Amino acid sequence: MSIEARLVELGIVLPKASSPAAKYANFVKVDKLLFVAGKGASEFEGQTPKGKLGQEYTTKEGYQFARLAGIEILAVLQAGFGLDSVERVVKLQGFINASPEFEEHHKVLDGCSELMFEVFGEKGSHARSVFGAVSLRDNLPVIVDSIFQLK
Amino acid sequence: MSIEARLVELGIVLPKASSPAAKYANFVKVDKLLFVAGKGASEFEGQTPKGKLGQEYTTKEGYQFARLAGIEILAVLQAGFGLDSVERVVKLQGFINASPEFEEHHKVLDGCSELMFEVFGEKGSHARSVFGAVSLRDNLPVIVDSIFQLK
Amino acid sequence: MSIEARLVELGIVLPKASSPAAKYANFVKVDKLLFVAGKGASEFEGQTPKGKLGQEYTTKEGYQFARLAGIEILAVLQAGFGLDSVERVVKLQGFINASPEFEEHHKVLDGCSELMFEVFGEKGSHARSVFGAVSLRDNLPVIVDSIFQLK
Repeated sequence: MSIEARLVELGIVLPKASSPAAKYANFVKVDKLLFVAGKGASEFEGQTPKGKLGQEYTTKEGYQFARLAGIEILAVLQAGFGLDSVERVVKLQGFINASPEFEEHHKVLDGCSELMFEVFGEKGSHARSVFGAVSLRDNLPVIVDSIFQLK
Repeated sequence: MSIEARLVELGIVLPKASSPAAKYANFVKVDKLLFVAGKGASEFEGQTPKGKLGQEYTTKEGYQFARLAGIEILAVLQAGFGLDSVERVVKLQGFINASPEFEEHHKVLDGCSELMFEVFGEKGSHARSVFGAVSLRDNLPVIVDSIFQLK
Repeated sequence: MSIEARLVELGIVLPKASSPAAKYANFVKVDKLLFVAGKGASEFEGQTPKGKLGQEYTTKEGYQFARLAGIEILAVLQAGFGLDSVERVVKLQGFINASPEFEEHHKVLDGCSELMFEVFGEKGSHARSVFGAVSLRDNLPVIVDSIFQLK
């Protein structure tokens, strides 16, 4: 089954790939490695989410934001190479806009990790790391940095 | 001398490689590059350390936690490929759970950097970076993200 | 035009490459990928800048610090391989020492991104990400982590 067919099956509609600011790129490819720009959830229930985990948002909401960040990443891949060109999800790094007391960063990033499994199956298995950022641009709650391997 | 013999000489006993949560991998290999999941000190004097540098913990204690995070990374490498397969330590990135006033992040990460030199000699020389995280999962004091080159 | 000639044209004078502490390297090269150690602005108007964005420093000052961090990175590349060996700027990751309320991390990192465009032209286009660190070593305001592709 193609990845596009899988997305339809999962009910995932990719947005238009978000544009990076003028001075940088959505991705850079070196041989088979694809380094993707950090992406956040641009829209949730009609609004851009703004706030911190452990303050304005719960872990469950953060999970949704991480999933949406993953969908933004998929949109970038689809626009650039087509999702069927992905050989492997290599690495995810999650930046969680969090309070000093927050301890569930991993449960937030699971939203992006589980999306990758749903979409890519075993190829979606990746190394990852996650940490609490004291603040993020535009007060976004979650940004995900990623590396992929292309065929 | 094999790296295993070196570990014996250094008195380092590797723990069982810690398991990642179900949805991701301890490492992903692309050609010769190995991207390893972020690892923290799982045990220190019989307990999982929890707290922030510059608050609950001193720089000297942080150095030990970074060293222990490095030992967790070595356990992952040993379980996956054997430590003699390592051609080079490429990159370490240290996430230090810290107070806003903390300024010795580099001295904390030295605990992991110096371990890599002890174990791998010149091949242990690596690029690195380090920063203060406002919080980390489970209130771990230190997590180390890493990239290795395999033979 | 060589990159060195371009630097002269831009009026950029590279400092001596800053030395890493004894235990790690300024860069590690794996095939064509160059992983560079995190670099900060070592001097601004005769002093080492110290403080946080959104507190001691404005976004405009942060932009200058990010540009200076980029110049430190260029100095490392020049000392190691010569700037004409650069095929592509692959990835920048900005650590911004920031207050919990700061929201302009991307505008700070632009200082480094725009430098790469000025110096390398289209080859300077890169993937990037940026976040707020609760604290950085020596209270530096900005550190930039980077990956380059060499010819």
